[in-house]
Amino acid sequence: MPFRMTEMVGCEFPLFAFSHCRDVVAAASRAGGFGVLGAVSYTPEQLEHELAWIDDNVEGKPYGVDVLIPEVQAVDNSVSADAIIAQIPAEYRDFTRNLLRECGIGDDTGAPQGGSQAPNTSLGQELLEVSFNHPVRLIANALGTAPPAMIEAGKKHGIPVAALVGAKEHALKQVEAGVDIIVAQGGEGGGHCGDVSTIILVPEVIEAIEQAGADIPVLAAGGIMNGRQMAGMMAMGAAGAWCGSVWLASPEAETSEVFRQKMVEAGSRDTIRSKHRTGKYSRQLRTAWHERWDAAGLPALPMPLMSLLAEPVLRAIDAAAVAGNPEARQLATYWVGQGLGLVNDQRGVGTIVQDFKTDFAAGFENLAANFE
Amino acid sequence: MPFRMTEMVGCEFPLFAFSHCRDVVAAASRAGGFGVLGAVSYTPEQLEHELAWIDDNVEGKPYGVDVLIPEVQAVDNSVSADAIIAQIPAEYRDFTRNLLRECGIGDDTGAPQGGSQAPNTSLGQELLEVSFNHPVRLIANALGTAPPAMIEAGKKHGIPVAALVGAKEHALKQVEAGVDIIVAQGGEGGGHCGDVSTIILVPEVIEAIEQAGADIPVLAAGGIMNGRQMAGMMAMGAAGAWCGSVWLASPEAETSEVFRQKMVEAGSRDTIRSKHRTGKYSRQLRTAWHERWDAAGLPALPMPLMSLLAEPVLRAIDAAAVAGNPEARQLATYWVGQGLGLVNDQRGVGTIVQDFKTDFAAGFENLAANFE
Repeated sequence: MPFRMTEMVGCEFPLFAFSHCRDVVAAASRAGGFGVLGAVSYTPEQLEHELAWIDDNVEGKPYGVDVLIPEVQAVDNSVSADAIIAQIPAEYRDFTRNLLRECGIGDDTGAPQGGSQAPNTSLGQELLEVSFNHPVRLIANALGTAPPAMIEAGKKHGIPVAALVGAKEHALKQVEAGVDIIVAQGGEGGGHCGDVSTIILVPEVIEAIEQAGADIPVLAAGGIMNGRQMAGMMAMGAAGAWCGSVWLASPEAETSEVFRQKMVEAGSRDTIRSKHRTGKYSRQLRTAWHERWDAAGLPALPMPLMSLLAEPVLRAIDAAAVAGNPEARQLATYWVGQGLGLVNDQRGVGTIVQDFKTDFAAGFENLAANFE
Repeated sequence: MPFRMTEMVGCEFPLFAFSHCRDVVAAASRAGGFGVLGAVSYTPEQLEHELAWIDDNVEGKPYGVDVLIPEVQAVDNSVSADAIIAQIPAEYRDFTRNLLRECGIGDDTGAPQGGSQAPNTSLGQELLEVSFNHPVRLIANALGTAPPAMIEAGKKHGIPVAALVGAKEHALKQVEAGVDIIVAQGGEGGGHCGDVSTIILVPEVIEAIEQAGADIPVLAAGGIMNGRQMAGMMAMGAAGAWCGSVWLASPEAETSEVFRQKMVEAGSRDTIRSKHRTGKYSRQLRTAWHERWDAAGLPALPMPLMSLLAEPVLRAIDAAAVAGNPEARQLATYWVGQGLGLVNDQRGVGTIVQDFKTDFAAGFENLAANFE
């Protein structure tokens, strides 16, 4: 196979499937893509369990893990999760409690929970160690510059380290830090993102890396939902595509049936870049959740406080939405990019990978027709 | 040539060069692209003069004209330009007057001028009539749905009518109205734009047109600065590229030397979608101009009042910037997309077109390498 990614990480087709859900990861890899498990929210024990499951279900195909080792933290990581939660201001707790009560979701659920782990450096390193006990072929760092410990661990185990960036300047820092693969994610993508769009960011990052004298492949991310777009980004010089949103409408995904239906119904203009989930800008389905925060006039809390407050509440909302609560259905949201405008149905992960391959060839044909 | 645009508008290479400057239009067409003159701000007499010049300088190559026939207007078009200007609130006039005075740009210049024409329906139709007296090969409608008069005039003269859209829903309205070509412009582009990015909007529009049972080619716009991006968008199904920002750093452009230098220096994160130029969101180089309006807390006026106030002031700022006034240099701005992050030098229009052709082939090679 001529794909550079095949050499580096062993996948047949350079379609990277980022997911928080092991089922998506295994199915994408089995179909010839490359699943990457987002492990940020796991404890080391949970991650061990998930990776063991993937090993049993991936049929020997390659996969990777995405962890988060933050460079700087909003809170001291020597304090307990409960002590961190205690820093959430009372008016924020009141707001979420009242929101749940008003919508009939109950006022006992949704309180910030000590069981949620705030990302921290030592946790990230533990997750890395767990990962290296499995046949992972890629380690990715979700946010910020990959720290030296990660780069060294990757080199020691002979596993490439990838880093996500949303700006050219960040890409150059990552290259200097020694990463092996850059994932350049445009602002149209779901989750944490900048505001430069994919078709500008990817060529900009490729050019900057070349000018820095480095030879680091760049994966295109942000808005890629089909193989024609993937072909287009590879015409622009990308070594493959890194996708997250496209898997969310699959039955295998961690999303609720309610959210998957909302994805199919929503258009490309129905997302928002909001701080009201993690404390940093991340793109999400725009719902009553964001309207309510805006109306309350409460600015987002910093990382990780915002997540510690929001995640249990949003899980309670999801559960109520699935149980048929119409107000909860209005509130339900999740990270997703503008590409949801290209989602017309719920397809299985294996089907999506196969469709990508077919459309990738069709994209090439679109272009080749001009050279006949 | 196999390009569909070659059949429709006669260009050798489907690279559309939108510009307010006749020099850019003629040079782009001469080099094998297709120049489109943005005629919105001209009187019929001025447009006649510009098109006659283009005819003398385009060496028989095809070109087009972009006019604006608004569907709805913020003001009654039976009133005079002076009467419209009188609707600008005093505090807005005071703000711009004080801004110019503070920055030493003088307080006599920059007042709203009756000579500026507000776009209106009858003016748009006059501009159309002038255009049809020249060998134009394309008429484009800059904003809103192309009105029946434009569609009919195009059919009568056998000239395709193109329309710019920033959302799938608008594209479907245009198709229903009977346009021949859709230009789908992503939110990363300069000038008036929506917020859906190019790699999502273009496939979304193509799919929606197919589903509507129509066969209308789609040009990709927004962020395209080189031939690899053009190839990528054509892999996604576009029939060509429509570019505006890339010409602005050319010596042929209407931009000042100061702005061209600022473009070369600026990065992709240095633009803003702001209403503080035309009254609708349009993407511009983010400068002290926007900071000052924000600080003043004055929301943008509606179309066309905002332009009538802003344009003379911005022209005075440009002149002062070119004359060396450092505060004017800080304020100077113009419409430009995020693609300015890919601008590294000032190149002539003919060189840019040739570079596009070379890079278009390189983009094809990038992709073809995966199929060898």
